[in-house]
Amino acid sequence: MSDRCLFTPGPLNLSSAVKDAMRVDLGSRDPTFKQVTQQLRDRLLLIAGGQLSHSAIPIQGSGTYAMEAALSTFIGKGDKALVCINGIYGERIAQILSKSGIDFEALRFPASLPIDVAEFERATILGERFTHVCFVHCETTTGLVNPMHSLLKIGRRHGLVTVVDAMSSFGALTVDVEADGIDILVSSGNKCIEAPAGVAFALVSNRLLGAGVSHARSFCLDILDQWQHFEQHQEWRTTPPTHVVQAFDKALEGLLEEGIPSRNKRYCKIRDRILGGMKALGFGTVVPQEFQSPVCLAFHSADLVPDKAAFESFYKCLAEHGICIYAKLHEQTSTFRIGCIGQIPDFWIDKLLGVTAGHFRISTSFSVQAA
Amino acid sequence: MSDRCLFTPGPLNLSSAVKDAMRVDLGSRDPTFKQVTQQLRDRLLLIAGGQLSHSAIPIQGSGTYAMEAALSTFIGKGDKALVCINGIYGERIAQILSKSGIDFEALRFPASLPIDVAEFERATILGERFTHVCFVHCETTTGLVNPMHSLLKIGRRHGLVTVVDAMSSFGALTVDVEADGIDILVSSGNKCIEAPAGVAFALVSNRLLGAGVSHARSFCLDILDQWQHFEQHQEWRTTPPTHVVQAFDKALEGLLEEGIPSRNKRYCKIRDRILGGMKALGFGTVVPQEFQSPVCLAFHSADLVPDKAAFESFYKCLAEHGICIYAKLHEQTSTFRIGCIGQIPDFWIDKLLGVTAGHFRISTSFSVQAA
Repeated sequence: MSDRCLFTPGPLNLSSAVKDAMRVDLGSRDPTFKQVTQQLRDRLLLIAGGQLSHSAIPIQGSGTYAMEAALSTFIGKGDKALVCINGIYGERIAQILSKSGIDFEALRFPASLPIDVAEFERATILGERFTHVCFVHCETTTGLVNPMHSLLKIGRRHGLVTVVDAMSSFGALTVDVEADGIDILVSSGNKCIEAPAGVAFALVSNRLLGAGVSHARSFCLDILDQWQHFEQHQEWRTTPPTHVVQAFDKALEGLLEEGIPSRNKRYCKIRDRILGGMKALGFGTVVPQEFQSPVCLAFHSADLVPDKAAFESFYKCLAEHGICIYAKLHEQTSTFRIGCIGQIPDFWIDKLLGVTAGHFRISTSFSVQAA
Repeated sequence: MSDRCLFTPGPLNLSSAVKDAMRVDLGSRDPTFKQVTQQLRDRLLLIAGGQLSHSAIPIQGSGTYAMEAALSTFIGKGDKALVCINGIYGERIAQILSKSGIDFEALRFPASLPIDVAEFERATILGERFTHVCFVHCETTTGLVNPMHSLLKIGRRHGLVTVVDAMSSFGALTVDVEADGIDILVSSGNKCIEAPAGVAFALVSNRLLGAGVSHARSFCLDILDQWQHFEQHQEWRTTPPTHVVQAFDKALEGLLEEGIPSRNKRYCKIRDRILGGMKALGFGTVVPQEFQSPVCLAFHSADLVPDKAAFESFYKCLAEHGICIYAKLHEQTSTFRIGCIGQIPDFWIDKLLGVTAGHFRISTSFSVQAA
């Protein structure tokens, strides 16, 4: 087996330094590993501006695990959440709440448009008495960035606990949990932090943690219990994925060295190269430019990729050349996604565009020009 | 950072081949990775003898995640579990059930003795009407092997659904889920399978799965939903830890090549070398020899390690020499644990015994003899 060229919105291609960190065998309850965990927690807060106001709580699992842990720990009986949805990951929040038996109302918007701030405010004023608001910062479905600051301001003004899914924005877009007024931010290591998948996290305000109330009916996904354990023993409650944790911490070191503004620029450069090339090949995007993140792009073409079968044939052709884009067509918007994050050298992009041109029999000179 | 010599009952020292499998970046929804997942599932069943009767469902997380997923998916309202406990991991089952609001009764035995089969049978006959029985095959607390076959026979005779925590036995002790009558077996990659931590699994009888009833109130830890998704799409529902999954599958290849009987012998050799050396240094064990697993050993010495402080000083001395044993004294039995699993060369054992002799100022000639 060898590396694929991953144009996916996580898992993504890791740096050698991050991979090397997975080669070391440490004891999960040994002081050396405890230091790695503590450093990881400190680095997350340093990056998110929450050193005085928040605590970082890593949770073993995918981002969804951390999101479920956050929602089911901090939303109780008698509470009601307002969930703003404009894509798959907003729907995921509703799914989790529904399965957990937590009361909520969904406010849905088209996937190609940002959450409507005015409509959100109307819902908070006119609707039922909400206690929490949940939304996705950058929807991986389309690569769209929602108006986080406006939503947070309104949420705070109405006294709601603010829960932000920052899965694909953390590390690429600047965030300041304290200044922005985020009570709970949830993200994962395997996107813009550029770590392997397997560890996600929540940044939770010390105000919420200090109240000491957990509504979790799960041993594993109780964030408060895990936080207390970290604070008292510097340990994970159950065996952590040591190798992934080590790599996660190494990746955070890399993020701190590069800085979010530089990483953002690097991703923007990749995005623009892909975007320019794909547009020249005849593909369109669905997200208005001002809401387009540097994380991933959603393309469509009624001519070239009219249906699922056409997409699958295109996907297979790329795969035969060692290139992975996101494996599913989003049927609602008829788009496929190309990720712009991770260690992506320019020649991979040229290859992606060249193979795409070849597959759709667009003349090579054109595709080279596009690249 | 460099490798520690891990004498811990998981995480443990990995082979180079297993570590190499973590260097490859694959797409989590790509056919290549789907094949790795399917192969992992097939290999687990091949090892456990459940190819015709059971399905393998990997669950991202520690063993406790898979145990919680199994218990909360398959034990519902109106059910009542009998939990036989003689150590920390039996207690963990009770903790999970308690937190999840599942009805159960605990039957407790001393940590140094196996679960009493006669007493278990009395409880099933005289006690309340139970629907499930749960117990730990090999208690990592002491390294003790419980009389699994007898317990299973009685459980089946009384029509109970049998749930076995095989966390530290799977890969070291032969098991046949079909012939032995195990409805649900739960284990993890990072023990005798010799994979990195981060993925656990449940082997569930097709009879239970086929009934199609899930009691889970968690999106992430719903085993039935994950199984259906594997069967229909060959995919994990949420982003899997790709690198760990690849290493897990590679480790299973290694286990199949070595075979459980040979692996058992290898561990027994390590165990006996440690046991002989430590006994010669003055340490005793608490588990009767016939119930002693080859997975880990629990030692005590009223003279050398009279209390927690003495243990911590010993642990620190070993750590300064790059040696990790399990980091906590089990206060109930006043024992500390030394793991015998993973890639442990003989000279590490000699070093462990030599450093132990040095720490307790037992004459070096004696320790060399012991090693």
